[in-house]
Amino acid sequence: MAWNTNLRWRLPVTCLLLQVALVVLFGVFVRYDADADAHWIDDRLSQNMSSDMDNEFYYRYPSFQDVHVMIFVGFGFLMTFLQRYGFSAVGFNFLLAAFGIQWALLMQGWFHHYDQGYIFIGVENLINADFCVGSVCVAFGAVLGKVSPIQLLIMTLFQVTLFSVNEFILLSLLEVKDAGGSMTIHTFGAYFGLTVTWILYRPNLHQSKERQSSVYHSDLFAMIGTLFLWMYWPSFNSAVSNHGDAQHRAAINTYCSLAACVLTSVALSSALHKKGKLDMVHIQNATLAGGVAVGTAAEMMLMPYGSLIVGFICGIISTLGFVYLTPFLESRLRIQDTCGIHNLHGIPGIIGGIVGAVTAACANSAVYGKEGLVHAFGFKGSWTSSTQGKFQAAGIFISLAMALVGGSIVGMILKLPFWGQPSDENCFEDAVYWEVPEDQKNTASRPEDPTLNPLEP
Amino acid sequence: MAWNTNLRWRLPVTCLLLQVALVVLFGVFVRYDADADAHWIDDRLSQNMSSDMDNEFYYRYPSFQDVHVMIFVGFGFLMTFLQRYGFSAVGFNFLLAAFGIQWALLMQGWFHHYDQGYIFIGVENLINADFCVGSVCVAFGAVLGKVSPIQLLIMTLFQVTLFSVNEFILLSLLEVKDAGGSMTIHTFGAYFGLTVTWILYRPNLHQSKERQSSVYHSDLFAMIGTLFLWMYWPSFNSAVSNHGDAQHRAAINTYCSLAACVLTSVALSSALHKKGKLDMVHIQNATLAGGVAVGTAAEMMLMPYGSLIVGFICGIISTLGFVYLTPFLESRLRIQDTCGIHNLHGIPGIIGGIVGAVTAACANSAVYGKEGLVHAFGFKGSWTSSTQGKFQAAGIFISLAMALVGGSIVGMILKLPFWGQPSDENCFEDAVYWEVPEDQKNTASRPEDPTLNPLEP
Amino acid sequence: MAWNTNLRWRLPVTCLLLQVALVVLFGVFVRYDADADAHWIDDRLSQNMSSDMDNEFYYRYPSFQDVHVMIFVGFGFLMTFLQRYGFSAVGFNFLLAAFGIQWALLMQGWFHHYDQGYIFIGVENLINADFCVGSVCVAFGAVLGKVSPIQLLIMTLFQVTLFSVNEFILLSLLEVKDAGGSMTIHTFGAYFGLTVTWILYRPNLHQSKERQSSVYHSDLFAMIGTLFLWMYWPSFNSAVSNHGDAQHRAAINTYCSLAACVLTSVALSSALHKKGKLDMVHIQNATLAGGVAVGTAAEMMLMPYGSLIVGFICGIISTLGFVYLTPFLESRLRIQDTCGIHNLHGIPGIIGGIVGAVTAACANSAVYGKEGLVHAFGFKGSWTSSTQGKFQAAGIFISLAMALVGGSIVGMILKLPFWGQPSDENCFEDAVYWEVPEDQKNTASRPEDPTLNPLEP
Repeated sequence: MAWNTNLRWRLPVTCLLLQVALVVLFGVFVRYDADADAHWIDDRLSQNMSSDMDNEFYYRYPSFQDVHVMIFVGFGFLMTFLQRYGFSAVGFNFLLAAFGIQWALLMQGWFHHYDQGYIFIGVENLINADFCVGSVCVAFGAVLGKVSPIQLLIMTLFQVTLFSVNEFILLSLLEVKDAGGSMTIHTFGAYFGLTVTWILYRPNLHQSKERQSSVYHSDLFAMIGTLFLWMYWPSFNSAVSNHGDAQHRAAINTYCSLAACVLTSVALSSALHKKGKLDMVHIQNATLAGGVAVGTAAEMMLMPYGSLIVGFICGIISTLGFVYLTPFLESRLRIQDTCGIHNLHGIPGIIGGIVGAVTAACANSAVYGKEGLVHAFGFKGSWTSSTQGKFQAAGIFISLAMALVGGSIVGMILKLPFWGQPSDENCFEDAVYWEVPEDQKNTASRPEDPTLNPLEP
Repeated sequence: MAWNTNLRWRLPVTCLLLQVALVVLFGVFVRYDADADAHWIDDRLSQNMSSDMDNEFYYRYPSFQDVHVMIFVGFGFLMTFLQRYGFSAVGFNFLLAAFGIQWALLMQGWFHHYDQGYIFIGVENLINADFCVGSVCVAFGAVLGKVSPIQLLIMTLFQVTLFSVNEFILLSLLEVKDAGGSMTIHTFGAYFGLTVTWILYRPNLHQSKERQSSVYHSDLFAMIGTLFLWMYWPSFNSAVSNHGDAQHRAAINTYCSLAACVLTSVALSSALHKKGKLDMVHIQNATLAGGVAVGTAAEMMLMPYGSLIVGFICGIISTLGFVYLTPFLESRLRIQDTCGIHNLHGIPGIIGGIVGAVTAACANSAVYGKEGLVHAFGFKGSWTSSTQGKFQAAGIFISLAMALVGGSIVGMILKLPFWGQPSDENCFEDAVYWEVPEDQKNTASRPEDPTLNPLEP
Repeated sequence: MAWNTNLRWRLPVTCLLLQVALVVLFGVFVRYDADADAHWIDDRLSQNMSSDMDNEFYYRYPSFQDVHVMIFVGFGFLMTFLQRYGFSAVGFNFLLAAFGIQWALLMQGWFHHYDQGYIFIGVENLINADFCVGSVCVAFGAVLGKVSPIQLLIMTLFQVTLFSVNEFILLSLLEVKDAGGSMTIHTFGAYFGLTVTWILYRPNLHQSKERQSSVYHSDLFAMIGTLFLWMYWPSFNSAVSNHGDAQHRAAINTYCSLAACVLTSVALSSALHKKGKLDMVHIQNATLAGGVAVGTAAEMMLMPYGSLIVGFICGIISTLGFVYLTPFLESRLRIQDTCGIHNLHGIPGIIGGIVGAVTAACANSAVYGKEGLVHAFGFKGSWTSSTQGKFQAAGIFISLAMALVGGSIVGMILKLPFWGQPSDENCFEDAVYWEVPEDQKNTASRPEDPTLNPLEP
């Protein structure tokens, strides 16, 4: 189990090779789309657009920036809760996301925006690339503390690829609606990550157990992540919806669902503690489950009370999951899920898929208006609400299947012994991969050192 | 004074009951407004709107997100300055705000958006709900560290209700302008909170005195809150103003006022310290007073130099308040104001109301243009600038009266002994209500423990 | 070297004098521009604008808020990496920026928006004022920990003035394009700051050496700054570009460049450490160099792969700079650059200027379209791409010259002994200017105290 964790040549070579490949592929394939190209002024004049405001940029850019914050600060800081893994949480998330968005622009571009040998990108592609990387950030939560940055880059490479295939099957072939990604991002990302961590099972992880907990200030840093995710989730679920009422509605539904989720998470957190005390883990995570679970249906006519009900249920289930399911998965199924992504993204993702399927199946012109129904779902020919509902449901299973199969293969690759992974007694420790300032140094693999605790705030 | 602080059944039951009631009320009353409903496409076509951009969503959503950040990260982190109360500051603020926004959607909806049995909500309602909760966050600052989460939920329930009544009287009955809420949010919120904390006076609070101060890193966390409040305040004051020039002007005025306020706060902070050193409390709080005090007048033709003058004065008064008034209020009037909200929201709120009344009274068509004057104030019939000014001034007194009466009643309710409040020696301590990680645990009610201080960063 | 650091009268007087002067100057000169004035409704009707959306506010405001966050949270927290200088980093940055934006509104107003005795301001002025202050924040990075707040205010006063002159020469006289400010903000700011710190050289700075490093949590605080800068940089580079495709393109190019920069920064950071470990300094800084270096060309048809190449190169050069150049500058050229701004803003700024000149020189109607070329560069008469390229190149040298000459003069002024600067053994220490909470107090000028380290988290 004594792997070499000196990444001096392996990490630089991996990064540089990947980045050189990206430069070449971008050079061959990627161009600006019509709204971002200098020729746009011709389009504008010829199409008689009344205003520069009709550029797609103004519909999507504010939402894009919010999503961008969620991926980099939201996910990054959410994972800083461990006492000595803050550099890696934020830093590795930064690295994998920066690589992932570039690779996603290509993969998603080939599937969705490929025309005459070129991929044409605009602000919507940037959002979708961030979304795709979101699923990698989810999976990162399961393996947090137990993998090297090289393993993360490899995982990102494969996961982005599989995400794009799955997304293509769902959105293009099955014409499933999944604007907030309950299925494509959360369900896929969570079960992919869980499968990977299951394959990478470490029987002696207890040797790092004393670092697999938080300290006072690390929990506050994690709350920065939680709150930015929570606050900007309405932008996440509405970012790529149709212009106008669909974006508007998606934001309202997500706002409602998340608010309800906070109250039930707090309720359960207190009820499940013998002295009625709240647990930061639940406040940091379960409060977000409501956002995951309205991902698919947010842009539909779910109604504000429908959103509240979804949030209500998910806050309860997610908190229960942290208390009962995560320990069970670890002890019985050998799934070591560092951040409990099964409770925050796995189950709520599936719930979100189901809610979406039911809401779509119930869509009718009384609720949407005749024009509105066509506009919202793009129904044409014999395609009806009930067909849509069935295909939505199929999307859940396909996402799960892709995640399990893909995760198994990728897990196997990551199990190879030369990726610089930490030994079981050095998990959850920044000093393995980072130059750590004095007050923290010299602590890796000396967990028993009794002088250490007083240094930790 | 030995209250039972084990909330195991009380907190969950409170949260679940409230949330169930909200679900039912939303089910009965709340629907999407025209711009968020799937029928919008019909409206758009029939009203000949030139573009999807005319959906209200695009006018308000970026401002909404900024306001949302202010409520959850801004207020939440601003209150993390105490050395052992960060979990509660961020967590309870999260809880009360998540509850409050739902309740505010209903209360404000009944008063302002009720039609044929339904409340119709859109992005402007989300902003107004956040605003309403802002006044609760203000009041929370006065009682910070001395109340249980159950008390906070009860306070939120009543305060949101009273806020909505007061807002209805001001905005609808008196046709007062108060876009940034100097009166409705800050004056009302501050004096409500001060009255509550006056009623909840704790004569033995000195037993928790050693925890009622900051440590190095808690002051930095608090600066996250300060800066997000400061930066996004232009969005706060412009979020619900009229489209176009009014939103534009409100942002400029707030930007100017806040900038001036920083310089005078720093000046006074240094001048009032015997060695000329700056005090973090002033930098964290007094620098924001300029935003409060242009809340009413920001959308009016206050002029950039007018905004600078308001900020100039408020930075001085607010800092003086922290140095002289807060100790006086505590020792003489038995008002224990943890965060000094009287200096940040109370006095500047009243100043804001006065500035608004004067600015409105001076409005004339030379400055606004004939059309502009009508557009800005909605004057019709015999209603003139001077009438407007008088009604504005009346708004200040009504807000104060509502706050004092409402705060007294709510304070009395919160004084009942079964809400799980902490004892005097356990105030300002997370461990009472939170599972706190090892390095901090076992410290509640053992303030004299000499081994504790070295652990604190 | 025992200067008096008690600022009791000097700092308040400086702040109040400056702010009074600003109030008077604003009163005489500053008015709202057409889009922010109450008369706008007349304009709108007479110009037949189809919608309130045509107000400039809606094109620029979301970008403005992102830029605002970069200046106050981004730069402020980026500089909190030092173990005992967090209050000053965030607080002094807050102070100088709040002063600087007001002064910049005037200076830039006189040069660019002066008409019939008045300066007319709108949202674009707010952005440009933030930009101007950005260059002061850059320079602050070089002198961080070694100057008093009075020195910073004086530096801001002069630097904003010189910035505005330089900007006027470049943008108005030479018609240079520099929307993201590679030359005007970064090159000018960096070499100005480096010149100042060179003049303020402290031969005995090693006496404060033990505080010129980070601790664990200070590095995490700094990552908040890094990430907000990194995430919002696309808004920075697109904030003042032409409406429509230019803003859109600038955001895409910046997104791409920054992503590539992260991978090469990580690669070099690991490759240059003997055990292959990553260094937080590089992750916090070098990852941002890609944003600096596409500042000029971002709005041009640089192409996504062009952006990746720029980011690729800058990540490498910047990291190399931190490892080899900064120590060299300090030991040989007596340039003590606390934050390494030469690597993050200096070299990448020059690269950005060159990239912009080359991209402009290569512009042709095949790439831009005939209409697009005119629209993008405003070419008229005999002005061609190659002329534009030459003037762009000239802009780099003028910015450098202004920075070196201006920095020398300002450095000389700041060297005067009565500005309250800290002694060599008290640099990088908050307690000199701040009331610091107990756990940190009494540490200034007692660096050898062995009991100190255990207190630091």
